[in-house]
Amino acid sequence: MKTNSNVEKIILGVDPGTNVMGYGVLRVRGNKADLITMGVIELKKYASHYLRLGKIFERITSIIDSYHPDEMAIEAPFFGKNVQSMLKLGRAQGVAITAAIMRDIPITEYEPRKIKVAITGNGSAAKEQVAGMLQRMLHIPQDDMDIQFDATDALGAAYCHFIQMGKPEVEHHFSSWKDFVNKNSDKVHE
Amino acid sequence: MKTNSNVEKIILGVDPGTNVMGYGVLRVRGNKADLITMGVIELKKYASHYLRLGKIFERITSIIDSYHPDEMAIEAPFFGKNVQSMLKLGRAQGVAITAAIMRDIPITEYEPRKIKVAITGNGSAAKEQVAGMLQRMLHIPQDDMDIQFDATDALGAAYCHFIQMGKPEVEHHFSSWKDFVNKNSDKVHE
Repeated sequence: MKTNSNVEKIILGVDPGTNVMGYGVLRVRGNKADLITMGVIELKKYASHYLRLGKIFERITSIIDSYHPDEMAIEAPFFGKNVQSMLKLGRAQGVAITAAIMRDIPITEYEPRKIKVAITGNGSAAKEQVAGMLQRMLHIPQDDMDIQFDATDALGAAYCHFIQMGKPEVEHHFSSWKDFVNKNSDKVHE
Repeated sequence: MKTNSNVEKIILGVDPGTNVMGYGVLRVRGNKADLITMGVIELKKYASHYLRLGKIFERITSIIDSYHPDEMAIEAPFFGKNVQSMLKLGRAQGVAITAAIMRDIPITEYEPRKIKVAITGNGSAAKEQVAGMLQRMLHIPQDDMDIQFDATDALGAAYCHFIQMGKPEVEHHFSSWKDFVNKNSDKVHE
């Protein structure tokens, strides 16, 4: 796949939760990615579960309207401990997805394990490792890393989507050569 | 509790799902309730799960803007077969809730069993029984009953909320006298 290096794309990554929601915004040009912003939306201060869902919608909509992402990537676990916690998580995810849909932004979901593999090569990597790898790859100053893991997890979803989109700068982060060849066969045979 | 019979309230009942979403709108004046409308939103025709969530948001918002409900009641199962189906259901619920929150409409959730008890006196009642009881209590013409159970389930949630709100016309639908006394103690001692 040829990537036009003059085309700029903005990717919004979201890690939806009902206590804290993380977000990260990447600017992608060709095979380069840069951090635009990342942060968290604190929801614990709102006593009502319903109000929290409303705030997720408002804040995601406001982030979309500020940064005009072309795509949204969501960290979305499919397997959970119990049905109640998955129902609650589903509500938060549904709200984040709807905010993107109402702005016509395509959505891609990534399981936490897939994001970890894409970034660190290890599906069981700790959140610290994901954050550290993102810091190095995106050259994020140490001061900007004093942030909750919900933000770096969201940024990880955006970065994982960037890798999936085409020619990544970080080819060595595929889990194996075979994996790399499978995902880049058009390039290997050039 | 005294109910001012001059005060009119509109209750929107919703039964959220990702294949079909039901809705029902009740007008409540004092201890009388009338059907305004009920129907279903067919979502199966939209191939994408994301698009379906967007449609739920749009349609619920449009129903709210047409009928100006004062309150929303949701049929919300808390116990499901597996985590994946609850995650999916949670997404649909989250979207419906957000549509109401964005219009400042208070939300109350009712478990399916609670709705069945409130309307038929039997928590294991079939959907046909719930629909039949609603038809009789609200004097709905037979022609208007040629509708999916998703709509009558949603109307059931609205009716259950009406009963919870104050003096119901259908006191005999409480499961027992003791239940009735507990829920209407202020009235019994008048």
